Amino acid sequence: MTQLPNEEVTVLAFDIFGTTVDWRTGVADQVADIAAQRGVALDAGAFADAWRDRYLPSMERVRHGERDWVYLDTLHRESLDQLLDLHGVADAFDEPARLRLVRAWHRLPAWDDAIDGLSRLRARYVIAALSNGGFALLTNLIKTAHLPFDCILSAELAHTYKPDPQVYRVAASLLDVAPERMMMVAAHARDIEGARSAGLRTAFLERPTEKGPERVADVASDATSDIAIHGFSELADTLGC
Amino acid sequence: MTQLPNEEVTVLAFDIFGTTVDWRTGVADQVADIAAQRGVALDAGAFADAWRDRYLPSMERVRHGERDWVYLDTLHRESLDQLLDLHGVADAFDEPARLRLVRAWHRLPAWDDAIDGLSRLRARYVIAALSNGGFALLTNLIKTAHLPFDCILSAELAHTYKPDPQVYRVAASLLDVAPERMMMVAAHARDIEGARSAGLRTAFLERPTEKGPERVADVASDATSDIAIHGFSELADTLGC
Repeated sequence: MTQLPNEEVTVLAFDIFGTTVDWRTGVADQVADIAAQRGVALDAGAFADAWRDRYLPSMERVRHGERDWVYLDTLHRESLDQLLDLHGVADAFDEPARLRLVRAWHRLPAWDDAIDGLSRLRARYVIAALSNGGFALLTNLIKTAHLPFDCILSAELAHTYKPDPQVYRVAASLLDVAPERMMMVAAHARDIEGARSAGLRTAFLERPTEKGPERVADVASDATSDIAIHGFSELADTLGC
Repeated sequence: MTQLPNEEVTVLAFDIFGTTVDWRTGVADQVADIAAQRGVALDAGAFADAWRDRYLPSMERVRHGERDWVYLDTLHRESLDQLLDLHGVADAFDEPARLRLVRAWHRLPAWDDAIDGLSRLRARYVIAALSNGGFALLTNLIKTAHLPFDCILSAELAHTYKPDPQVYRVAASLLDVAPERMMMVAAHARDIEGARSAGLRTAFLERPTEKGPERVADVASDATSDIAIHGFSELADTLGC
């Protein structure tokens, strides 16, 4: 870890899925509900994992120019259709059910420490959401979860996906700050490395249970970051808020 | 006024300068402070008016393609430099003073009814700021004034200025709603007409003192709107919030 010139940072940008909200619990719960309504037996946790597994590869195709930019909801929908086919349950999920499932990613529970930590950090910093979720998805998610962000930024505004450095640069430009005055807070090594490559400061926030009980989440030693913390409270403490 | 299909609207977009915040009082007060510090006698209200008078023409040049898109702060700075020359006080305002003056537009007081009204409306609608102010300006302004918006949208995201229909279309697209499910709330006939031309619903919110004691503000009869109200409380009442 390098020395943190704390006084220079004016904006904190937060990853959302996994870092600020518990996507796995939220998606699995909603999948279980909708499957039960359809009378389908499905391991909802494994289904959420499989859905998320397709997230990175689907964005990579956009990021590498193999297809034009599409909204994350579209990628989620394509992955969902494939998974329902694979599980042999395509017939049980009609169009309204599939729309509801895609919208599950718009309603996810905040981690326990997020609201209080963000409220403390907000007193000193501009706090922004910066996610691969689309602008509408993030607006719905943040409103529903009562997360007190000052503003919402999305990879959609750069028409590519994190960790493309362009996403972080567009975010800093929209907030009219030099990249080194913005700190990216994320639980994923890819996000931290992408932010670093764009010149941002970085805070690796560990979420050991992000991927559920059977998978290993990223840890701070997977990436080079300015600071490493274990939650929003420790981040607020570390930054003197 | 046409019939309002209230149940179809899910997003309320609010103009900021004049509609949500009192730009004239805020700018005049800060101009007076900075002029006094410099020992310059200046009619701060008249100066704020003259500065604002240059706002529309400066944006028109961008809107009509006579110059490339530039951030509102840049237009404010150009107008300021011209005005200080005209008043023969250019020497009294050095670079830091001019930067502070441009930043005056980032710190403006909310109208008395704004916070309470927005809080009521937020319970039923997604509420978005939609202003010609840049994204950073709006983030600073909304944070400082404690305005409880769900998200911030700016003409900057469309690289043109209201009332260009593209600004409203980009806003609706980012929130993933059809234009007719978004209602623009504004105190200016131009904004209402621009929003209507993009297919939005419209609410004309009268602010009789927006331009100070000596000028006449726009009134609802200057434009065709779905509803006309006299403040945020009446808007919340009218929409059943």
